Amino acid sequence: MINVTVWNECRHEVEDLDVQEVYPETIGGCIVNMLKPFGFNLTLVTLDDEHQGLSNELIEQTDVLIWWGHRYHDELDDALIDKLHQRVLKGMGLIVLHSGHHAKLFKKLMGTSCNLSWREAEGGEREKLWCLKPSHPIAEGIPPYIELPQSEMYGEPFDIPDPDELIFNSWYQGGDVLRSGCTFTRGRGKIFFFSPGHETFPIFRNQHIMRIIANAICWANQAHQSGWNFDNWGRPEPLEESAPRQTYFKKPRKLMVAEKMLAMEKAKQE
Amino acid sequence: MINVTVWNECRHEVEDLDVQEVYPETIGGCIVNMLKPFGFNLTLVTLDDEHQGLSNELIEQTDVLIWWGHRYHDELDDALIDKLHQRVLKGMGLIVLHSGHHAKLFKKLMGTSCNLSWREAEGGEREKLWCLKPSHPIAEGIPPYIELPQSEMYGEPFDIPDPDELIFNSWYQGGDVLRSGCTFTRGRGKIFFFSPGHETFPIFRNQHIMRIIANAICWANQAHQSGWNFDNWGRPEPLEESAPRQTYFKKPRKLMVAEKMLAMEKAKQE
Amino acid sequence: MINVTVWNECRHEVEDLDVQEVYPETIGGCIVNMLKPFGFNLTLVTLDDEHQGLSNELIEQTDVLIWWGHRYHDELDDALIDKLHQRVLKGMGLIVLHSGHHAKLFKKLMGTSCNLSWREAEGGEREKLWCLKPSHPIAEGIPPYIELPQSEMYGEPFDIPDPDELIFNSWYQGGDVLRSGCTFTRGRGKIFFFSPGHETFPIFRNQHIMRIIANAICWANQAHQSGWNFDNWGRPEPLEESAPRQTYFKKPRKLMVAEKMLAMEKAKQE
Amino acid sequence: MINVTVWNECRHEVEDLDVQEVYPETIGGCIVNMLKPFGFNLTLVTLDDEHQGLSNELIEQTDVLIWWGHRYHDELDDALIDKLHQRVLKGMGLIVLHSGHHAKLFKKLMGTSCNLSWREAEGGEREKLWCLKPSHPIAEGIPPYIELPQSEMYGEPFDIPDPDELIFNSWYQGGDVLRSGCTFTRGRGKIFFFSPGHETFPIFRNQHIMRIIANAICWANQAHQSGWNFDNWGRPEPLEESAPRQTYFKKPRKLMVAEKMLAMEKAKQE
Repeated sequence: MINVTVWNECRHEVEDLDVQEVYPETIGGCIVNMLKPFGFNLTLVTLDDEHQGLSNELIEQTDVLIWWGHRYHDELDDALIDKLHQRVLKGMGLIVLHSGHHAKLFKKLMGTSCNLSWREAEGGEREKLWCLKPSHPIAEGIPPYIELPQSEMYGEPFDIPDPDELIFNSWYQGGDVLRSGCTFTRGRGKIFFFSPGHETFPIFRNQHIMRIIANAICWANQAHQSGWNFDNWGRPEPLEESAPRQTYFKKPRKLMVAEKMLAMEKAKQE
Repeated sequence: MINVTVWNECRHEVEDLDVQEVYPETIGGCIVNMLKPFGFNLTLVTLDDEHQGLSNELIEQTDVLIWWGHRYHDELDDALIDKLHQRVLKGMGLIVLHSGHHAKLFKKLMGTSCNLSWREAEGGEREKLWCLKPSHPIAEGIPPYIELPQSEMYGEPFDIPDPDELIFNSWYQGGDVLRSGCTFTRGRGKIFFFSPGHETFPIFRNQHIMRIIANAICWANQAHQSGWNFDNWGRPEPLEESAPRQTYFKKPRKLMVAEKMLAMEKAKQE
Repeated sequence: MINVTVWNECRHEVEDLDVQEVYPETIGGCIVNMLKPFGFNLTLVTLDDEHQGLSNELIEQTDVLIWWGHRYHDELDDALIDKLHQRVLKGMGLIVLHSGHHAKLFKKLMGTSCNLSWREAEGGEREKLWCLKPSHPIAEGIPPYIELPQSEMYGEPFDIPDPDELIFNSWYQGGDVLRSGCTFTRGRGKIFFFSPGHETFPIFRNQHIMRIIANAICWANQAHQSGWNFDNWGRPEPLEESAPRQTYFKKPRKLMVAEKMLAMEKAKQE
Repeated sequence: MINVTVWNECRHEVEDLDVQEVYPETIGGCIVNMLKPFGFNLTLVTLDDEHQGLSNELIEQTDVLIWWGHRYHDELDDALIDKLHQRVLKGMGLIVLHSGHHAKLFKKLMGTSCNLSWREAEGGEREKLWCLKPSHPIAEGIPPYIELPQSEMYGEPFDIPDPDELIFNSWYQGGDVLRSGCTFTRGRGKIFFFSPGHETFPIFRNQHIMRIIANAICWANQAHQSGWNFDNWGRPEPLEESAPRQTYFKKPRKLMVAEKMLAMEKAKQE
């Protein structure tokens, strides 16, 4: 069973009445409830939990981490982010939702500003997510496009490195587009950025959206985490013995250095 | 004319007799001398210069930055690295040579450990750089392969994101391979990682190697830096007026919130 | 000076009154007129010219080929397409406009159906081309988005291999999106697919659209066509002499074969 | 259970005594025997079978096709290749082994010459396959590198489009390198090119090599083939009703055309 940790900032749910109206069970609570039927081992944590929700033990045991944060990215402890970054490089899957585009962890993995253009219109606007890769595991069971009646606009230009795969491309009523479902690999870690999920619209109650997230969990999870990692790997012995090398130098390097040092010392004596 | 800044750590040249033997004019000095015939406007700076070589003015004026560092990556000031990172995202070209794979700036742009396997054999070992993309501007004038009689082995697994383009693929005498010439784009910035250039071998005197670096400078330089950047771009007004939206809610959101707050306040009064 | 050949099917211009109205000088004529100020050496040919417009001499001399075709893709001679295919692999640039997505040459280079979804609404519909890569040479001088008041919808799913670079992403009034500006490399040849350009709308009179095409010509042209090609390259002599090989066989292969043949012949004699 | 069809040219096995020595059960026979423990539903066919081994029924039922051909690529019927090409675009997985780089089907899917450099040295030469992506499903259970004591050299420059993923990178004793394990997507079809497998060396008896092929079968198979395809998809009705369009023309197009035709007819009468 895949160990999925859902990290939810969970401050909107305290601070904003309209978010409470849409997600009385919190955003993270909704995600967990919607993912239950897929048979994952789910853990829900929030920014205000001990260790900002992510103890060393939990980080170690997590196969795939889902991230929803927005207003308080800056509060995240840098040391925690470093740990999570290392854990992703060692093979933990990561699914970054919506405003997580500006999360410290995501920006650290991307190396760019992750800026985009955005518009929060009263009542939102229609979004259509077009699927570009029907054969991708993340798109299993998904029709050519998904319609979201109300969504916050997140649009291009989006400052990310070219994704490994562009799976969803969004259309917005107000005239914008976005690469809205993108995969990345960093070290052994597989990362999926997925833009839908604004706090004031019940997008995480949409069956297609949750199917995509469930598919992405399976995709990002690595059955073979016991394999080798990308280490700084000094290997003094060559694998091959081969023909004598040409050299730029007439003498072995260490001999040359020794003679030179000797000459310098002698020069000092005189 | 392209403004090229060559940043050289320049400590090996002070500390190691064998490096002095190979590069009496320093590594950076050799690079600058070899690049002169190409007609760039060249500036040479080192770690021990004021501002670690990179004042705000110089950073601003640099079109393409060449980076050679090795033993003292950790000494680089984090605030300086942040400035350089921002400058790359805004369009400065960056050419990272050899052991710069572990430079703070490169790792920050990649988001990975940038670890690789390595072997410093006495006398080095032969390296062959195979060119995979003869039509790429960086490969102009380069034969199918370049032979380096002595080189330090830098090998796979190399922990980088998939490069945008893989231009050179290296063979080593001792049994290893490396993606040795890779391009990346981050924000508006174009980045070229090029692995040859160990401090104890006169690799920067090789005409092919320097032609590649000169080609890469032209490629990484942006003729059109005056264009727009990737900003956090709030755009409250939609570009398109369109059909009425469906809504999840029966009332406008702000009205709903106001009524709810009123009800809560009344409840408190009672 | 870059030798640009504009290939125009030029049958709509004969058959359709509304196309005559929009492009009295023909589509190809308009493209050539609009490109003149950029200083290319331009040649205009059509399907109904001798050799379907493309003699061996012209193919050889062309640096960059621009392709506009639509209704008569099937008439193109397969032998001509093979020649053009080979010429692209050897380094001729190719810019495929609009309905050229179904041209034999483009499909042969892509290896896919190049199908897409499409809609020709009376009066067309608005298209917005969002630029994703402001620092790309093809995007020089282009704002964050270009608006076309009337365009034919070409939308996803678009059956192309993942492009090397996705430079423009289009929004359509009717609810669709398209990867509308894509680069590909095949052999030494650089290819740009650009979707705008329907025959009944004056899109090739738009300054931004023509700037993009001019930029793409410069990008696709190769200054260094004299370099080496991708040949079937038998190289019997190893580049390296190295340590003795292990072998699966106890005897040299030819000796083994000879002995075996001898035994078979002897068996026949008996 | 995954339906795997192994297509083997199977002429070397008739014509060459040394191949008979290495693969008395034929190359295809060896592949099938080695794959049996993985639990696939395996079918072995050859060029000299009816329908060149691939009846319409078999093509339809095949989930993943493995291709080993070398000397007689040209004999393959073009109509059969077209069928197979269509089947790949509709979702059949394809694993192309060794000299299949020049198979008609592979070249048609790539759009390039697929040329490479090669050397068949007496006794072959050592090859090391370095794994670049330990977390990829195709690399599950594979160490950092695999050594083949004897192999035919297939080297760069290799004329393929940039692969989606570069999983293996080969080193050869004679001084060459090759992108030896590459993935591609074409339409819904997932393709893996894997270079080891020369007819005179028992490479298909190597457990690591066969594990990679078995992994690739699982990766290339699509659990969700019932989904939609990439069709030429005319969709006359817009998905969105939106604000009135600007038009280039003062009149509706059809009215304009009608009036113009009328004027022309009248002019003829006079």
